[in-house]
Amino acid sequence: MKKMDYQNVKGTQDFLPEAELIRKRVKRTLEDVFMKYGCLPLETPILNYTELMASKYGGGAEILEEMYTLSDRGERDLALRYDLTIPFAKVVAMNPGLKMPFKRYEIGKVFRDGPIKTGRFREFTQCDVDVVGIESQMAEAELMVMALDAFKELNLDVIIQYNNRKLLVGLLEVLSVDKAHVNDVILTVDKVEKIGVEGVIKELKDKDVPISAIDGIERFLTTYEDSSFFERYKHNSLIQEGLAELEELQTYLDYLEVSDQCVFHPFLARGLEIYTGTIYEIFLSDQTIKSSIGSGGRYDNAIGGLVGTNETFSTVGISFGLDVIYTALERMDQQPANEGLTDYLIVPLKTEKEALLLARTLREQGKRVEIEMTGKKVGKALNRANKERIKKVIILGEKEIEQNQLIVKEMATGEEVQMTFVF
Amino acid sequence: MKKMDYQNVKGTQDFLPEAELIRKRVKRTLEDVFMKYGCLPLETPILNYTELMASKYGGGAEILEEMYTLSDRGERDLALRYDLTIPFAKVVAMNPGLKMPFKRYEIGKVFRDGPIKTGRFREFTQCDVDVVGIESQMAEAELMVMALDAFKELNLDVIIQYNNRKLLVGLLEVLSVDKAHVNDVILTVDKVEKIGVEGVIKELKDKDVPISAIDGIERFLTTYEDSSFFERYKHNSLIQEGLAELEELQTYLDYLEVSDQCVFHPFLARGLEIYTGTIYEIFLSDQTIKSSIGSGGRYDNAIGGLVGTNETFSTVGISFGLDVIYTALERMDQQPANEGLTDYLIVPLKTEKEALLLARTLREQGKRVEIEMTGKKVGKALNRANKERIKKVIILGEKEIEQNQLIVKEMATGEEVQMTFVF
Repeated sequence: MKKMDYQNVKGTQDFLPEAELIRKRVKRTLEDVFMKYGCLPLETPILNYTELMASKYGGGAEILEEMYTLSDRGERDLALRYDLTIPFAKVVAMNPGLKMPFKRYEIGKVFRDGPIKTGRFREFTQCDVDVVGIESQMAEAELMVMALDAFKELNLDVIIQYNNRKLLVGLLEVLSVDKAHVNDVILTVDKVEKIGVEGVIKELKDKDVPISAIDGIERFLTTYEDSSFFERYKHNSLIQEGLAELEELQTYLDYLEVSDQCVFHPFLARGLEIYTGTIYEIFLSDQTIKSSIGSGGRYDNAIGGLVGTNETFSTVGISFGLDVIYTALERMDQQPANEGLTDYLIVPLKTEKEALLLARTLREQGKRVEIEMTGKKVGKALNRANKERIKKVIILGEKEIEQNQLIVKEMATGEEVQMTFVF
Repeated sequence: MKKMDYQNVKGTQDFLPEAELIRKRVKRTLEDVFMKYGCLPLETPILNYTELMASKYGGGAEILEEMYTLSDRGERDLALRYDLTIPFAKVVAMNPGLKMPFKRYEIGKVFRDGPIKTGRFREFTQCDVDVVGIESQMAEAELMVMALDAFKELNLDVIIQYNNRKLLVGLLEVLSVDKAHVNDVILTVDKVEKIGVEGVIKELKDKDVPISAIDGIERFLTTYEDSSFFERYKHNSLIQEGLAELEELQTYLDYLEVSDQCVFHPFLARGLEIYTGTIYEIFLSDQTIKSSIGSGGRYDNAIGGLVGTNETFSTVGISFGLDVIYTALERMDQQPANEGLTDYLIVPLKTEKEALLLARTLREQGKRVEIEMTGKKVGKALNRANKERIKKVIILGEKEIEQNQLIVKEMATGEEVQMTFVF
């Protein structure tokens, strides 16, 4: 027989038990925190109509190029979802009877047929919370605090950077930047930490942004000290709104005493055009991973646009990347996966049926139990127990069964304890 | 704006929170029981190479016709997985260093582009446990008992029917049925409960099975009383092995006192050719759902075949259908989804920031808390609390904050309790 050489599809990966135990803990922790904040689970299909996924309120041209498409036996044009936001919007659109505010979370696989870089996969898991039906900045404050609670549970120190897109967009209005170029300019400004002020200016010149506007942007990037910078532009209604929202949000963050972890960052822009107000990105405090481990913001127009009515759907969301969180926890290396440890290994010596009964009884008491079923000798079984950090071993011979007395060996200490068990 | 008419793709469905809360409970219950039996989580990709999924050790011609195929930007031929067994076998093949026995579970989406019937979907969730590396019938006994434990936790009464394919295959050998037709004949015999003995005989005649063999099968179907029927055929080595395995398994089931729930069923065959020994199907005792809600068996040749070596990989598996279990629980209707209930609703009266702080503190104590953020008046907020079965309501006015005294209203009784909280 030819030995087969299997590989995973490029951009996909298996998670073996050691990794998956940690990922499962992350998922459960997130779910439990989400539930405490009144968010309920939703599950949407991976298969969607291409038309829906390609809507202009969706992910934008860059993401659409990375969409996996296929068709079914009815020759429908289908696509694998590339995020959880569009399927969420679809659910809101399809269920007009939903009680508002509708607060849901979803943890699920998404697919992007994009270039592969380190840590970037084509099939990966997102953990999203979205809340529709709340206009107040309380919604943003809650999601930010929820993120802090979740990462505290996971023992990860994080910083949340936040901004309000109305300030940036308003500033560009004041500077007479052409509406059609606003998002493109914002994408460049967003890079300032990476390419510096000079790099930004060069890129803006390449994009043919008028010199007067570039001067204004340079002034913003070099002289900004605090939000009073925007006071002089309060005649612009977007800036006025943005400042009011910022003040409201900061009142909440100050009162909750999380202002040291939630930092206003006036140059933060986030690529996606759908955001309309507050935006935020979450980073590890120790910067061991440079990219954000979560992000989100307010997008008040997308669902209305998808639904196709003039109704407004005030919506705030946050998304956590399971894979990057897993990578962060794995690097900390302070988290041996104790979740998977076995409480008891039972080694039967011609006492198979009694071993099954003993195992079942211990499991009914909530223990994790394995039976040695491959005929290993006692010595080898004890070796296995040591290697796999199994806590206790019971060697089950005929004498033990006759006398209804078991000897439980604690592997860490070598101590042996008698236990009565009536067979 | 044109109002959009969104639909789900045929064969897919959303699970709104009320449903998903129950499904989440089922998943967690299964996971916890699997872990108690020493099975660890594994996650495999949904995207696979078509070549792997189409392997002859895979699902067979019928399933392959239902495979969704697509390609990526590298023009690789890909398919969405149609089960969790092949990806499991792939992991075993790709990781020769895996410690044996390897006991894993996986809960995940699978895809089959098949005809739609009631309760049959094209995208659905399977919950699989497979154990590789154990020859003894203890493995089968454990998986059967594990299934009983899981359904007990879920408050579902079930019956497990089991059989050993070696008995059927051996009988057909004795009756000189052509090897190439064995599986086809077994598929027909499997239908006896649906189409009766006469129906089986008619179908076998249509399939040109020799008359002498049909006579033997008829004798089996009409005179079988207990496994002593097979004693006369013990010169056939398969029947001899099958009887020995059956006896071993029954010794375990008797000793565990589960023989009333685990019933030997000599005509049970299971469609899939991969099974080599013990097979089982799980049914609801009250028969409110006729199809099985779980099934599995031993398949000792599939992984070796996929790996492409002469090594034997003794493998036993069991698979639970999340969707059919959810349907069963939903029909019982005795399980209001208490999981989703909110402990506290806080209604701020111009006390937004204090409401956020109070909510966060209560959540730190493990409570599920919502804040009324849409500006509802007290009366409407209380109505909402009643409708959504929220347990307690706190109306938070300025007086309460000045005095650090809250009034907590128990919605079930109307009782009001004072609580001190220092703002």
